[in-house]
Amino acid sequence: MQKQKNVAIVGSGLVGSLLAIFLRKQGHKVTVFDRRPDVRTVQFSGRSINLAMSNRGWKALREAGVEDEIRKLALPLDKRAMHVEGKSVYFQKYGEEGEAIYSISRGVLNRKMIDLAEEAGATFRFEEKIWDVDMPNAKLYTGESEKSPWTEYQFDLIFGADGAFSRTRHKMQRQSRFNYSQHFIDVGYKELTIPANADGSHKLDNSSFHIWPRGNFMLIAMPNLDGSFTCTLFMPFEGQVSFETIKTEEQIDQFFETYFPDIKDEISNLKKDFLKNPTSAMVTIKCFPWSYYDKITLVGDSAHAIVPFYGQGMNAGFEDISVLNQKMNKYGDNWQMIFEEYQNERKPNTDAIAELSYQNFIEMSSKTADPLFLLRKKIEKKFAQSHPELWAPLYSRVTFSDNAYAEALETGNFQKSIMDRVMKVPDIEEKWDSEEIENMIIDLIKK
Amino acid sequence: MQKQKNVAIVGSGLVGSLLAIFLRKQGHKVTVFDRRPDVRTVQFSGRSINLAMSNRGWKALREAGVEDEIRKLALPLDKRAMHVEGKSVYFQKYGEEGEAIYSISRGVLNRKMIDLAEEAGATFRFEEKIWDVDMPNAKLYTGESEKSPWTEYQFDLIFGADGAFSRTRHKMQRQSRFNYSQHFIDVGYKELTIPANADGSHKLDNSSFHIWPRGNFMLIAMPNLDGSFTCTLFMPFEGQVSFETIKTEEQIDQFFETYFPDIKDEISNLKKDFLKNPTSAMVTIKCFPWSYYDKITLVGDSAHAIVPFYGQGMNAGFEDISVLNQKMNKYGDNWQMIFEEYQNERKPNTDAIAELSYQNFIEMSSKTADPLFLLRKKIEKKFAQSHPELWAPLYSRVTFSDNAYAEALETGNFQKSIMDRVMKVPDIEEKWDSEEIENMIIDLIKK
Repeated sequence: MQKQKNVAIVGSGLVGSLLAIFLRKQGHKVTVFDRRPDVRTVQFSGRSINLAMSNRGWKALREAGVEDEIRKLALPLDKRAMHVEGKSVYFQKYGEEGEAIYSISRGVLNRKMIDLAEEAGATFRFEEKIWDVDMPNAKLYTGESEKSPWTEYQFDLIFGADGAFSRTRHKMQRQSRFNYSQHFIDVGYKELTIPANADGSHKLDNSSFHIWPRGNFMLIAMPNLDGSFTCTLFMPFEGQVSFETIKTEEQIDQFFETYFPDIKDEISNLKKDFLKNPTSAMVTIKCFPWSYYDKITLVGDSAHAIVPFYGQGMNAGFEDISVLNQKMNKYGDNWQMIFEEYQNERKPNTDAIAELSYQNFIEMSSKTADPLFLLRKKIEKKFAQSHPELWAPLYSRVTFSDNAYAEALETGNFQKSIMDRVMKVPDIEEKWDSEEIENMIIDLIKK
Repeated sequence: MQKQKNVAIVGSGLVGSLLAIFLRKQGHKVTVFDRRPDVRTVQFSGRSINLAMSNRGWKALREAGVEDEIRKLALPLDKRAMHVEGKSVYFQKYGEEGEAIYSISRGVLNRKMIDLAEEAGATFRFEEKIWDVDMPNAKLYTGESEKSPWTEYQFDLIFGADGAFSRTRHKMQRQSRFNYSQHFIDVGYKELTIPANADGSHKLDNSSFHIWPRGNFMLIAMPNLDGSFTCTLFMPFEGQVSFETIKTEEQIDQFFETYFPDIKDEISNLKKDFLKNPTSAMVTIKCFPWSYYDKITLVGDSAHAIVPFYGQGMNAGFEDISVLNQKMNKYGDNWQMIFEEYQNERKPNTDAIAELSYQNFIEMSSKTADPLFLLRKKIEKKFAQSHPELWAPLYSRVTFSDNAYAEALETGNFQKSIMDRVMKVPDIEEKWDSEEIENMIIDLIKK
């Protein structure tokens, strides 16, 4: 058991709430600040992508003792349902029998996590805005506005769980020798909804992650418990087919009629929601160091925001907390060691999942129409199926294991280097499923 | 001639002052703000590396009509003087006959540039701190502190020339889709001084850039007009030989005795200055976009801070202003076009000089002790000398021409790819100066 500390968490999102539960279990006094209103009292934003809880997320929830509560909110998806133009829907299994990712609405999960943190004894202060952080003294300053009078709070420890645009990190960034980058991609997203049938059932298969790939844009849909689907349209901000060129009701209508005729009529309030819901940007954020002595550390998106194309943002954030908790158990009251080992262990792994997520974006947005890329995927898949002991699919390593992300990336790069050589074989289009190619891959792996 | 605008420049450094001169020549009303005191009234900081003006810098000064004034402050350096341990000093010419870089003290140049901008009719407001920028309305807010009452200024255009830690960019960074990175290197620097002889003459050759390379640290010295040299010690912050391990007078004494015995006694107040002068960090900053509609743009370090190992920081900033002026002449009052074409033209070039400067740092800090690296340089040099039409040295392209930095980088990468192959030739150590290697390089270039 650690010596009791007076702890502030900035941000009542998923990662902040989970951390509050762990810190309460260690016996600390926990206050969670959030500049926004309590999500339990307001309509959720209309700008969220459904979450895909996988192995790492569940592991952290299990350690926090709240896994069973959260399982009730989640729907298992064991496959992709591919809605390709001019083809019937077909399915791609994610992994082995029993392996699945779990669809959860961000709003539903966040409300529940705050309930659970409150039950564990954490205090939440909503609509209280942090304007400054005194890092050496672990003080927070809150107030109505930047120029209004401020209230000062003294803590022992401060955790920045305030997301991609973290105020806590913003303060750390003004230090010398603080490395930082924010890189936006040229694709935005918009939330849409497919409501339940009148009897409450789902309009599409509810154990699938639905994808309508359309070259450099795509629609996805993930089921909710109430029978609805949360849909997300990913599309470039600018260009020929882009958010910029689809502005009027007529243009919206025509766009969906052209590209998504099979699902268009199922999306409720299509035109209204399209115009009302914001077009959101996606960013990769990296920084280092995450910690300031034994006073402050960053967790989740504030330390490492990633693009959502691997479904690992929340899982990576939850894994942060799991690792932090390990370090607390290992180092007791030596918070400087806890923070240092936590950041040093997590940094290469969160860089790796950032890279993997970005690679997935590039693949999805520019390569899915390339026949050579599709051939490469076909060769990999065939080989993995006949030699599972030699070729673990990257997706499974990331999603259904808790092996370090950095190892998954390394293996992925090794597999990529092999496939680069395979694809250079003359006439690969003809002999891709030959014994020659199979043996070539085996030789390259064993070298 | 453009329609007169009411223009603010944030920052009275070298680039801000030069921009003020150009804008006055176009007939604009110009106010320059600086949070620091007037450099003409105070001792300069003790944290500056001498400047090396080269082709691009002179070109911009010539266009501003102030080249001759500045020439008077500069000393031409046509060669490096290498002070290698256990060897006599030897010299390396920078370029062709008549090619030189020009050593100028930052303080001396900055004072003169402010004088010239004032003479041109710009107004300077020193010790006035900008706290906020209203970007859509081109308003600036200044005040004693962030929380004190603020003064509001209305302008037509605002230029952020406020350096690597720009407040103007800081505001732009809060926009969605603003890409930004700051990356610090693990090496710091400290300013030291070699004073003039009693008769005012220089203690070392005053037409050389002096370097004492020592593996992962080094000392440099550049002459000033008054007979002194400004020295800079570059050294890792942490590690076996590092700023961290040299803290006491005794340690300083021993360090210089061990590594710089030939120059130790010439450095004035060595121990006092070493302890008093700050150890400064070096950062590469990249961002995009630089401009906000027809209201705001960034120039110089605020848009693209680089590490100093190519001597191009100021030159790149001055080239920004030269390009901005071209665009003003081309587009007249269409400020949105001016800003857009300026940033689109400059961005790949400033990224390229950032990359080249960083590569030079890596070479200087980790490769100068590698015999294969030195052999590579020897082969390149020999080939360049016998085939000047086929192999222009990268340094000359960057320093003595105004070809785009991006082209210089591209050529450099091409030359590197050739040398990578040359270095793989078996027994290259024996046959490096053979006709076989010479012909191999020619073939690779012509392919």
